[in-house]
Amino acid sequence: MLRVNEQDGKFVCVGLDPDVDPAAGMLPPALRDCPDKVTSIDELTHGIVNGVGSAAAAFKPNLGFYFRHGTRGIDLLIRLIAHIRTRAPEALVILDCKSGDIDKTAEQYAVAAFETCGADAVTVNPYMGEDAIVPFAKYKDKGVFVLCRTSNPSAARYQDAIQADGQPLYIHVARDMVALNETYGNIGLVVGATSREPVVRVREVAPELPLLIPGFGKKQGGLIADIVPFARPGGHGIFLANLSSDFGKAWQDQFNMSVSKGARAKHSDVEAEIARALIQPARS
Amino acid sequence: MLRVNEQDGKFVCVGLDPDVDPAAGMLPPALRDCPDKVTSIDELTHGIVNGVGSAAAAFKPNLGFYFRHGTRGIDLLIRLIAHIRTRAPEALVILDCKSGDIDKTAEQYAVAAFETCGADAVTVNPYMGEDAIVPFAKYKDKGVFVLCRTSNPSAARYQDAIQADGQPLYIHVARDMVALNETYGNIGLVVGATSREPVVRVREVAPELPLLIPGFGKKQGGLIADIVPFARPGGHGIFLANLSSDFGKAWQDQFNMSVSKGARAKHSDVEAEIARALIQPARS
Repeated sequence: MLRVNEQDGKFVCVGLDPDVDPAAGMLPPALRDCPDKVTSIDELTHGIVNGVGSAAAAFKPNLGFYFRHGTRGIDLLIRLIAHIRTRAPEALVILDCKSGDIDKTAEQYAVAAFETCGADAVTVNPYMGEDAIVPFAKYKDKGVFVLCRTSNPSAARYQDAIQADGQPLYIHVARDMVALNETYGNIGLVVGATSREPVVRVREVAPELPLLIPGFGKKQGGLIADIVPFARPGGHGIFLANLSSDFGKAWQDQFNMSVSKGARAKHSDVEAEIARALIQPARS
Repeated sequence: MLRVNEQDGKFVCVGLDPDVDPAAGMLPPALRDCPDKVTSIDELTHGIVNGVGSAAAAFKPNLGFYFRHGTRGIDLLIRLIAHIRTRAPEALVILDCKSGDIDKTAEQYAVAAFETCGADAVTVNPYMGEDAIVPFAKYKDKGVFVLCRTSNPSAARYQDAIQADGQPLYIHVARDMVALNETYGNIGLVVGATSREPVVRVREVAPELPLLIPGFGKKQGGLIADIVPFARPGGHGIFLANLSSDFGKAWQDQFNMSVSKGARAKHSDVEAEIARALIQPARS
């Protein structure tokens, strides 16, 4: 699934969750004259992609931020993915749609994500079991990141709930996905960076699955030095460290920096931080 | 949340999951000359809405079937919801998007569903906990149907998993939603019709919450006479019985029947079956 591998030393996933509401702090002065929100989102997201380009391992637009703007938002999403292909042909494009529906509907979402939008991978919610996952996994050259332990505060309510065997639900999901991956070969897991334990425990039961790790960065607070050494124990199992709003806001870090330059500088910083973390021994 | 209530005797939710692939059997001869798939979906869905009209309690378009067709599909979805408003102003429009994402993203989906698309209610996946639900529930005049026990074969894998207190996960979800409903007053539950036990058990812990019950009909096999007497025990708790492909295929029931006439006849049959079931005592 992951065309970008460890040999390239690329681990950064650039989340494209453009929120141009003034409170979100993503809109630099130069874009405030855009005639409407969709145009400013267009400029913002293209600016980030142009800035980071083929240095990124992956780009991950989240469907909700585009669907909100109706047909124009979906048009922008499709054009944005095509633009990523041009600027960063080796990068993985993950459509973050957290799909979770019965088989016949999951088939529709798979067409939407992989054919209509042209994404390489999706995120999928496991609550309905494998019926919701297999229609995506059947696309052998595409990838499926299944939500395992997410990074939000209320994730613990059901995901950490202890099951009859004494293990939390998310460990059951991880084990089932290891089994499903034996059939399909293109399954990964989403495990949040906001605490270390889930990453450590998931790596124990799923040492070889690709991990997509959101929750790094200023807002959610996961620290690369805390998590990354555990994301790839023993040299096995690729991972992608996702940051979203940090890229959208990076232009703030220096007066008058463009969106592109800000995103490029942020990417370099994150990549260097990951490189340092990877040569550290994992300390429990 | 439910503007259509028991006094009206309306319990039927018309699922609008248009699949015009020939194998799905939804496309009558008269629509096979449409210039493309989106046009035939447009004709099919408008035909169903025109046929059932204000006799339905609710209409439920599933996002996946529209998103699949990109910007034209989303345009169709928005126009279809506007058309339902005209033809059936009292019917509830449920956007079946099974959203399940962190708070800032759930806010985007809430705008998409309630403002951009103009829906009255949505379906939401609880795997991430209440962070994924509250941004929708904050729209006090809208409704949120939370997936509890779904109708698909692999639903049991996690939803029926026994928790530390001996109860299945879906009962925990039902109880939590009863508590959340005390704050917001607009929470309902999705409980599939394919077996009786979940409906009976959910009604024990959530007697007052609206239930959206998919899985009735030819394909999934839930029988109205088996389920409906348990969906409203003691006269409490409204429910919506959902059928999807049965409406799309109803034109087949009689030679040369139009989509509209077929859907209207199907609705009358289902409504009568529910009325008969409601006067039966619940037999365990």
